[in-house]
Amino acid sequence: MSSGTNLTVNGSRLWDTLMVSAAIGASRGGLRRLTLTEEDRQVRDQLKRWAQDGGYPLTSDGLGNMFLRREGTDPSLPPVLVGSHLDTQWAGGRFDGVLGVLAGLEILRTLDDLKIETRRPIEVVNWTNEEGARFSPPMLCSLGFAGAATLDWIEARVDKEGIRFGDALDRIGYRGEAPVGGRPVDAYFELHIEQGPKLDGAKLPVGIVTGGYPTYGARVAVEGRTAHTGPTPMEKRQNALVGAAVVAVAVNEIGWAHAHYDAKATAARLDLVPNLPGTLSEYAQLFVDMRAPDAEGLEKMTAELKAALPGCAERSRTKVSIAEEWGFGGLEFDAGLIALIRETAAQLAILTMDIRSQAGHDAYNMAKIAPTCMIFTPCKDGVSHNEAEDIELGETLPGVNLLLHAVVARANR
Amino acid sequence: MSSGTNLTVNGSRLWDTLMVSAAIGASRGGLRRLTLTEEDRQVRDQLKRWAQDGGYPLTSDGLGNMFLRREGTDPSLPPVLVGSHLDTQWAGGRFDGVLGVLAGLEILRTLDDLKIETRRPIEVVNWTNEEGARFSPPMLCSLGFAGAATLDWIEARVDKEGIRFGDALDRIGYRGEAPVGGRPVDAYFELHIEQGPKLDGAKLPVGIVTGGYPTYGARVAVEGRTAHTGPTPMEKRQNALVGAAVVAVAVNEIGWAHAHYDAKATAARLDLVPNLPGTLSEYAQLFVDMRAPDAEGLEKMTAELKAALPGCAERSRTKVSIAEEWGFGGLEFDAGLIALIRETAAQLAILTMDIRSQAGHDAYNMAKIAPTCMIFTPCKDGVSHNEAEDIELGETLPGVNLLLHAVVARANR
Repeated sequence: MSSGTNLTVNGSRLWDTLMVSAAIGASRGGLRRLTLTEEDRQVRDQLKRWAQDGGYPLTSDGLGNMFLRREGTDPSLPPVLVGSHLDTQWAGGRFDGVLGVLAGLEILRTLDDLKIETRRPIEVVNWTNEEGARFSPPMLCSLGFAGAATLDWIEARVDKEGIRFGDALDRIGYRGEAPVGGRPVDAYFELHIEQGPKLDGAKLPVGIVTGGYPTYGARVAVEGRTAHTGPTPMEKRQNALVGAAVVAVAVNEIGWAHAHYDAKATAARLDLVPNLPGTLSEYAQLFVDMRAPDAEGLEKMTAELKAALPGCAERSRTKVSIAEEWGFGGLEFDAGLIALIRETAAQLAILTMDIRSQAGHDAYNMAKIAPTCMIFTPCKDGVSHNEAEDIELGETLPGVNLLLHAVVARANR
Repeated sequence: MSSGTNLTVNGSRLWDTLMVSAAIGASRGGLRRLTLTEEDRQVRDQLKRWAQDGGYPLTSDGLGNMFLRREGTDPSLPPVLVGSHLDTQWAGGRFDGVLGVLAGLEILRTLDDLKIETRRPIEVVNWTNEEGARFSPPMLCSLGFAGAATLDWIEARVDKEGIRFGDALDRIGYRGEAPVGGRPVDAYFELHIEQGPKLDGAKLPVGIVTGGYPTYGARVAVEGRTAHTGPTPMEKRQNALVGAAVVAVAVNEIGWAHAHYDAKATAARLDLVPNLPGTLSEYAQLFVDMRAPDAEGLEKMTAELKAALPGCAERSRTKVSIAEEWGFGGLEFDAGLIALIRETAAQLAILTMDIRSQAGHDAYNMAKIAPTCMIFTPCKDGVSHNEAEDIELGETLPGVNLLLHAVVARANR
């Protein structure tokens, strides 16, 4: 067994698997592979074939989370998990999530190529519904694995067409026999494209993710009254669309007011009822998303949002309230794993920067139950959740090799 | 033959028919009876039964417009048409349109009660898809009757589910044999609730509609770029939702700036793509609706909108353009019919005010091909396109009796 600095993954093989994946659900140069759709089934079938080819036993759990196992010399020890997700956004890219799963697969293959054994088993995981583009909330099934949501609640999530998560899972045939979570995990590693411009801007191949931006989410409800768009005088109007627009503008302005320290605020989704040309809308719900590097900044932004709402209501003559709010992120990843990655990078002479994750990741959930950390690799111009999302293999391989060495080191602990 | 001042409709019978209609598609105290749905079929079946009971031959034309005819002593003369529509908004009231059709039916019945003959035939019409809540544009089938749109174009309109107008019409079985329009009409009368607060505020039972507010409509397109709501810095964002919100706020402010002379501007409907929580939207379309008492005011508002768009684009870092624009209204009703109504009201000692229509009506289309005018009756607080829409029979009957006398006078011309 060796993990000398000359040990590297097979970059062209990794790229080939990425391109096989990129053909499944291809759309406008990117991917539209929403969770539990036919395209998701196809990419899962492909992962299953890769598992069979490599001789990695594959298990699916009751939420469709998939685990490819490479046995350790001591199979009784809890495994090291490596992975991410194969589902994408509605207008998603080819690498968001996918790279993390296929880098894990490439690690298993590299270890086989060189006949390297590890003490602990290594498992590559594909989490179901990371994106939340079909079923809300995102990171749904790592949440279940971490025991932070009940299976009944997860199964009952519905998409825009009213289809239940559990039914969609059955429909693609990926409800597995394995229990969801409830087993010890030695460590969880997730490699992911940064989805922001910092690494690409700094021309550095690796971000060591020390933790996550605290994130605040809210569903703002706006209550108005339907009326005719024609004869109804301005002073008699309670147009929920205008109420939501005023809130959306206020949210965007809060984002700009805090942008200088890399905070941001998003008016992310807006639903209107009845949303017809001749009628003022009676109801709107606006999803607000705010993120800041630290809790103090986020608290300030949240307070500013809440302070702005009465003025928004008055200006639009509607009733504006926060119907639901939530938070995530604001966590620190495992100090031991961060130190391991930092030391390994130094040994491999890979240049890194410390970075905090601004997107949510399954690693956030895994951090609740196991030592967890993440490695970021660059993406072009920081573009993500967009079909134009792109990476350079040469800029990506240092991160994948770093992952390989760190995983092997941890698995031999 | 007589049309002495003591000739009146049967108010309680009229109310009964209104309440029969109000039970078909009843929803939250109002009506949801979208055009060419099962509910629309049911109310058409009811109108057919009423036609049979009264012995009024019923014809449907190729767009489903329905005509109940009471013969004149000279059947060769072009008929006097009276009517409106039985379809409603998504959250509509029980009287918008319905009152105009059933007032027409009540006039036929009253003339039968008293065995009054008229020289010209009188026809009561129910126009298909006045509201435009399912198929855009509104007033679609009077447009066809007036020869201002081709049948092919009308048939090809699709609803939000992609169903073609022509297929929906066939599905409810109301595509008739009669040709669409192309026949002479002596005059068109339409009685309608005001849908605004002027009559109710002034406690006057009748508005003599002298013409319509000029109306400007536009579909504003906003082009942005999808990106992750998390790591994407504010300065890299092109969120189409924010672009549309800034435009919606600007539209609302233009409305307020011109409200002092009863103009108004509406951000009426907003569609977003992909409209998901974790992703900035790449596209938005906002439907804008502006109305003013005169062309000069409307031109000023339209110019202000166009002048505001570059700033909206800059502020939201999106591309904003007018993808489509249209106008209607801005017409004068027939001077002879207005004089007839004014004189008739004076004879009947009914108090009236002159008023201009701010909503679109089928009368706008009929004015293109025949002498046309409208009578408005009060609705409570001016509320319309809302289930709470309400009228008082006592305040409505003067208008219906005025319609009766004017129609009979015209039919005996």
